[in-house]
Amino acid sequence: MKTEAHYIIPLDQQIWWPRQKRWQTPEGVGLLEEQIIRLPSVFSHLARRLGFNEAFARCHSETTAQTQVTEPSRPCVLTSEVPGPKSRELSARLNSYQNTDAVHFFVDYERSHGNYVVDVDGNCLLDIFTQISSLPLGYNHPRLVEVSKRPENMITLINRPALGSYPPIDFVDRLVNSLMSVAPPGLSQMQTMGCGTCSIESGQKAVYMAYQRRLRGSRPYSQDEMNTSLMNQSPGSPKLSFLSFTNAFHGRCMGALGMSHAKWFHKLDFPVPDWPIARFPQLQYPLEEFTRENQEEEKRCLDQVRELIEAWAKRGEPVAGICVEPVQAEGGDNHASAAFFQGLQDICDETGVYLMLDEVQTGGGTTGKFWAHEHFQLKHSPDVVTFSKKLLSGGFFFTEELRPTEGYRIYNTWIGDPMRLILFEHVLKEIKDGGLIANAEQVGQQLQDGLKALQIEFPGLLQKARGLGALCAVDVPTVELRDSILQRMRNKGVHLGGCGTSTIRLRPSLMFRSHHADIFLDTLWTTLKEMNKV
Amino acid sequence: MKTEAHYIIPLDQQIWWPRQKRWQTPEGVGLLEEQIIRLPSVFSHLARRLGFNEAFARCHSETTAQTQVTEPSRPCVLTSEVPGPKSRELSARLNSYQNTDAVHFFVDYERSHGNYVVDVDGNCLLDIFTQISSLPLGYNHPRLVEVSKRPENMITLINRPALGSYPPIDFVDRLVNSLMSVAPPGLSQMQTMGCGTCSIESGQKAVYMAYQRRLRGSRPYSQDEMNTSLMNQSPGSPKLSFLSFTNAFHGRCMGALGMSHAKWFHKLDFPVPDWPIARFPQLQYPLEEFTRENQEEEKRCLDQVRELIEAWAKRGEPVAGICVEPVQAEGGDNHASAAFFQGLQDICDETGVYLMLDEVQTGGGTTGKFWAHEHFQLKHSPDVVTFSKKLLSGGFFFTEELRPTEGYRIYNTWIGDPMRLILFEHVLKEIKDGGLIANAEQVGQQLQDGLKALQIEFPGLLQKARGLGALCAVDVPTVELRDSILQRMRNKGVHLGGCGTSTIRLRPSLMFRSHHADIFLDTLWTTLKEMNKV
Repeated sequence: MKTEAHYIIPLDQQIWWPRQKRWQTPEGVGLLEEQIIRLPSVFSHLARRLGFNEAFARCHSETTAQTQVTEPSRPCVLTSEVPGPKSRELSARLNSYQNTDAVHFFVDYERSHGNYVVDVDGNCLLDIFTQISSLPLGYNHPRLVEVSKRPENMITLINRPALGSYPPIDFVDRLVNSLMSVAPPGLSQMQTMGCGTCSIESGQKAVYMAYQRRLRGSRPYSQDEMNTSLMNQSPGSPKLSFLSFTNAFHGRCMGALGMSHAKWFHKLDFPVPDWPIARFPQLQYPLEEFTRENQEEEKRCLDQVRELIEAWAKRGEPVAGICVEPVQAEGGDNHASAAFFQGLQDICDETGVYLMLDEVQTGGGTTGKFWAHEHFQLKHSPDVVTFSKKLLSGGFFFTEELRPTEGYRIYNTWIGDPMRLILFEHVLKEIKDGGLIANAEQVGQQLQDGLKALQIEFPGLLQKARGLGALCAVDVPTVELRDSILQRMRNKGVHLGGCGTSTIRLRPSLMFRSHHADIFLDTLWTTLKEMNKV
Repeated sequence: MKTEAHYIIPLDQQIWWPRQKRWQTPEGVGLLEEQIIRLPSVFSHLARRLGFNEAFARCHSETTAQTQVTEPSRPCVLTSEVPGPKSRELSARLNSYQNTDAVHFFVDYERSHGNYVVDVDGNCLLDIFTQISSLPLGYNHPRLVEVSKRPENMITLINRPALGSYPPIDFVDRLVNSLMSVAPPGLSQMQTMGCGTCSIESGQKAVYMAYQRRLRGSRPYSQDEMNTSLMNQSPGSPKLSFLSFTNAFHGRCMGALGMSHAKWFHKLDFPVPDWPIARFPQLQYPLEEFTRENQEEEKRCLDQVRELIEAWAKRGEPVAGICVEPVQAEGGDNHASAAFFQGLQDICDETGVYLMLDEVQTGGGTTGKFWAHEHFQLKHSPDVVTFSKKLLSGGFFFTEELRPTEGYRIYNTWIGDPMRLILFEHVLKEIKDGGLIANAEQVGQQLQDGLKALQIEFPGLLQKARGLGALCAVDVPTVELRDSILQRMRNKGVHLGGCGTSTIRLRPSLMFRSHHADIFLDTLWTTLKEMNKV
């Protein structure tokens, strides 16, 4: 469903015209004559507030096979704040067994539908964080409900296999119909894993093996290599490093954490490997005003990558791989240009370092393409692409060159979960039938336009609105203000995420539509207006 | 169901008498007179082979509420070997996407029941490896089938939460009824995780935090600590080490792999931290004949632990924790005495090092107690106990002292899976109602007695039969012979696992009964007899 509202705008009250890409208060530059304009519905609340006459509004259904999802028409908050008393009570109980400082609220998953999450206090929130970006179709999608009713699928649930050794009879077909059908071009190999962290660390291992294989040539493993590997000593356990970027986040186990530099509480007190860390570009916004500065910034960062590769080779701990997120998520929704990623790949090609793209948060369609790195027009595929979250299963795609030459090299007991593949197969059908990737691009544009408009209206509260499709974000000057916005929004029924130092991150499901964006932008406008008064 | 067969044994054909704990061929020491003996059914095949008259046999049901499980009465192999042609064909297809050297066979999970796994070629195997020891109740247990039909449970399946921030409404009750109900005494805290490896690495982090907290006292974190932690530098990322043992296996990510020393293909080419590694006792068998030697061996190993703790403190990378399996599984089913583990805890108490017991493979009842470390009568609880596999969810229990003081310190997107808790709650009910832990002890004794009997009959093929309940194993002189036994057994319909250099490991489900042990021992006897002829 795509909504557009049409308004008659009097000459003296003309407002922002989207195609001019600049927000104007009614006092701003006007149009030449009174006319009917088709205003994207993101601005309809403003139009109404400004007293424009609503000429007509219509909804036109698009002819897609997408499933009809029943969900509330708008948020509804019953308690004076979120979390409410029942969530607090459950948190207190859970707190007997574990630290609950990270608990936002307890969820009634049965009553949650589509883009709306219902908490235990009955508050119904528009969810634009979707379980840290891991629910592709929102809550209780009819297709998945249907899948979960089929007894043949439940067999997979209750007999979880050791997938690397005893795959189910239909495993190859499942793979072909699910994960392999979205393999990034050039990456013919794939390994499922349980979670994002394990995907990253297994990707690192594939890189290490390929790197050492290249050094070793056709020589077989020596007994000394095998023996020393068992005792954590070289040559069996070689001194190799993985290069990562400031503000990166790749996961929580030691090898992934060694590449993560987003927040102190992920890291403090934990020994991690001393590996090279390059600066991730810190772009200035609006991008179109800082083209030269940003190019220079990206060049400096790429130069540093080159220098670090050289320095660490000299130090005797050569860089085997570079790991990077197409958009740094946890670290603050930091973007870099396609040229930066192309440059990074060029450096890898020149130096023989493998390139691993961490698409755990960016993969799955939210950016307007299934893989975020498709936006970068790379010369050839990266060597590894990791995934998890919206793909329901963890895992990574990789090149033939990185394929392990023995069994059990990349392995663990469960090594994925075929139940998640069954579900993901149906998620993919919905993505295709519902045109959900195009939707993400479209609604993403609406969100970004809206955020840009609001940041012009509230320059003291919002900065650097940015995004790739619906994966978008905006900065707030301080962490206190950011948290205050998030809390006020939640109390008004819109649930968002934070990231970086003081960023608001939007992680809508792929079922997030134009009218959801309206509600979000309207609520944000009201919130910012309130805060400006304080 | 407990089966005992009763036989009339002629005076001249008396065989092994279980209570004498020694196997005698019919030519061995006889009993005083012809009599009716009640022979544990493990020996019934031998009795039959020796021509004894079956006097009577009866089954007496125990008055338990255990669920009746329908399963085949015996294995049935249709193809000339396992894997058969259909498994090979599917492997070849899967091999286009990933290395399949670790694939044993493809499984028809729908047709698998109880202790019997049915492969894609229709071979029905008695499964004594149970998905690397991860299926507590075997295949398609009626209780779990029933659970999977309830729509309210399926909501948990299709709406997988970010459990650390948005737990489901019934999460606390689920925890209390499932994992918390089997918490080792003294461990009030618990964190679910996705898999064994993540459980180990999160346990390490809890240890690191507690260790640093003790050093820091009441002083708050400094800005320098927070900043340096982000760049992998001390003081924020301190030089701490974790002590592990030779032949240990704790998992596949960098921190867990750094403590694993079982097999080269887990390790080769992967950089891991250079941490202290102590020798794990190599006991001589039979234990009762080598009491003194084994005591000395364990003392030497404990002395080395002390020395390493001292040496690494001097080196400036103090040992924060010791990680050890109650029975080293992957590394060869290596046992140490209760005294060894008591000694290890004493060292920890003296040196302020935390003790982490890795019960990923040993937890869940197979050893005849829910936690293997309950066999050790430790003075007080260990500091951390990790679990996964038979508990369906990964995670770890820990003391109040190890509880993180902030949120998000031990965390990831999914951080466990409440669907697995729902299933595990019903597994626990069956364990209780079916008396499955007592069964594991009983059938474990039968398996161990049988293996000891067979190793006396086939001393050139079997050695060091050992076990803790049904978690038992036996060594074979060479890896070739071991693999030949495993393959021949599989071709006869009994599926076992290997571990260590040349060990056969038994990992029956908790539904494994006396008559399954009969089939196993009978098939093993036939196999060894065949091999002796070759």
